[in-house]
Amino acid sequence: MTDCKHLESVLHNEIPLTRAMEISVSSCSENRLELCAPLAPNLNHKRTAFGGSLYSIAVLCGWGFVFQQMHLNQLSGHIVIQHSEVDYLLPVAGEIRACCEFSDKDTLKRFIKTVQRKGQARIKLPVKILFDGKDAVKFLGHYVVHQ
Amino acid sequence: MTDCKHLESVLHNEIPLTRAMEISVSSCSENRLELCAPLAPNLNHKRTAFGGSLYSIAVLCGWGFVFQQMHLNQLSGHIVIQHSEVDYLLPVAGEIRACCEFSDKDTLKRFIKTVQRKGQARIKLPVKILFDGKDAVKFLGHYVVHQ
Repeated sequence: MTDCKHLESVLHNEIPLTRAMEISVSSCSENRLELCAPLAPNLNHKRTAFGGSLYSIAVLCGWGFVFQQMHLNQLSGHIVIQHSEVDYLLPVAGEIRACCEFSDKDTLKRFIKTVQRKGQARIKLPVKILFDGKDAVKFLGHYVVHQ
Repeated sequence: MTDCKHLESVLHNEIPLTRAMEISVSSCSENRLELCAPLAPNLNHKRTAFGGSLYSIAVLCGWGFVFQQMHLNQLSGHIVIQHSEVDYLLPVAGEIRACCEFSDKDTLKRFIKTVQRKGQARIKLPVKILFDGKDAVKFLGHYVVHQ
């Protein structure tokens, strides 16, 4: 099973709402994770994406990114969202695509080392949802891992 | 139809995910709105409430509060979430109950007058989710109304 499919099955098995939202993992690499979902199950009263769906996909994108980092380093632990901030800049009138891209290798290394040493660590991750080539949602999540 | 049932039917008809989450409007008055949802459809990997569900219920509680204020003043318009901040303080291991209580009558009056005069206004609303008598989630939403 690829890492993408593994993460997708974790989400679908552990968080039933991800099935109702039809979330899938569209791509994943060492420093980038993309989740997507069709508009239909995530509609709001204006026929664009519901703010709660946009948030849920963003928070899971950051969560999945941490999950992948832990997996790549043969670590396990609980990953919890502690604080988040969201800016809704433009409506999303089609497929929802959330991307967590984090190229700061030093911060990632430090995060993993702290988990290994102390069994607990924190990381702030940005997630973006683009629509029509423009930033539609900007999310910042503060995640905590504890073993 | 009571105001509670009217708002509940708006949510269920316009935002299909509220049906998957089994959200209901448990009480509503002039300066207070409470939404609730059972745990089962909103579970996460730790068998407590998924952060995206908690957020969705909170954001809809603020949205519904504005909807009620508009309705009480015979106004219509689009209600949009623009920015929000969330603190997850404790896990929610049972029914989710979100409450928006806003007793600042001057701010509410000013908000309604601004909608009437300019066709557009903003309001910041706090929403809390309590579990076992303690604050479990604190949410602050910045909503915009435009006609």
